[in-house]
Amino acid sequence: MTLSKTNIVHELARRRKSVRKFLDSPVEFEAILSSLETACQAPSGANRQPWRFILVKDPDVKRRVRRACEQGEREFYEQVSGEFREWLLSRGLSWEKPFLESAPILVAVLMDQNAPYARESVWIAIGFALLAFEENGLNSFTYTPSNTDYPRKALNAPEDYKLEAILPIGKSADDRMKEGKLRVHEVTFIDRWGNSLDASMEDIGN
Amino acid sequence: MTLSKTNIVHELARRRKSVRKFLDSPVEFEAILSSLETACQAPSGANRQPWRFILVKDPDVKRRVRRACEQGEREFYEQVSGEFREWLLSRGLSWEKPFLESAPILVAVLMDQNAPYARESVWIAIGFALLAFEENGLNSFTYTPSNTDYPRKALNAPEDYKLEAILPIGKSADDRMKEGKLRVHEVTFIDRWGNSLDASMEDIGN
Repeated sequence: MTLSKTNIVHELARRRKSVRKFLDSPVEFEAILSSLETACQAPSGANRQPWRFILVKDPDVKRRVRRACEQGEREFYEQVSGEFREWLLSRGLSWEKPFLESAPILVAVLMDQNAPYARESVWIAIGFALLAFEENGLNSFTYTPSNTDYPRKALNAPEDYKLEAILPIGKSADDRMKEGKLRVHEVTFIDRWGNSLDASMEDIGN
Repeated sequence: MTLSKTNIVHELARRRKSVRKFLDSPVEFEAILSSLETACQAPSGANRQPWRFILVKDPDVKRRVRRACEQGEREFYEQVSGEFREWLLSRGLSWEKPFLESAPILVAVLMDQNAPYARESVWIAIGFALLAFEENGLNSFTYTPSNTDYPRKALNAPEDYKLEAILPIGKSADDRMKEGKLRVHEVTFIDRWGNSLDASMEDIGN
């Protein structure tokens, strides 16, 4: 076992939390590029690497993206219901997305819709990016706009590319705690659904 | 900049490759659990943590899963065409999935279909897991069965949970090179689609 020496990925994942409020301080552009270079190493269906990134730094473009997203959010919040609505309200979330202007940089993530397993591939790459951002001292959040066409058009991206997420990047000014997480033994079975990990550990002999 | 000290995530991502052939040596069960614990730290829609894992170690279950998957693959390979078919053939891939028996452990990843942004969340978690496997000295591969119902049933998982991927885990016996990857400047624009990173670097002043 080499875990004790090398559990840096676990430590980064454990301490990472979603950050929606940012300090008004600049971020190192190189650190963002380095993190996206990490994302570019993700596996993808037929190695098509269906991810494309737009780094939004210009305040005018950020404002346009925010307006485009909020238009979709207003439409969404009018019709959302049930458990998801309750969760949103409990977190004080609304159609307003100020982080799209307050974050020093937005990373818009677009996906080539014609590539096989495009969505799966892009979200692995986002997973890689989130850990790299954390390692590089950058806080982030995976914002999934309710309507992705509006911000895609605001960024002049072609229709073949779906906007999958916008990652606001910066230094945290968000004192919200990380959401609690289930532990591995609570979400894992052995050999078949329902066969809990705890009950099986003795048999496995490790 | 602290990149030079702390670019471990990048180094793991860079060296990680998809591995489809495995040594016949056992893997440390704790290293797999630790890697999945890392995955459990991923963000998710409404914090619903829609991932569930089944660790398949029993040879009989592995055989059943392989048969279920290959049934779907045979149906798929009969109808696949175009660029994806050419890519599959160029890599020597076929409906046969021997790694589903030869890998010491399979990690079946299931997704609660009723959670918001379930697919996106599960694949971020898979991204976290892939880097943790690499850090823990385990090789892996994201296999996406062509028909996911057959192996889901073979694992007795309920219909509400879609089988998103099977990750065979072990020590590599695969001498295939990692697929070449586009670099970040080849997939990234500034402020709007088409505005290349290289052309913009002088303006940004970093």
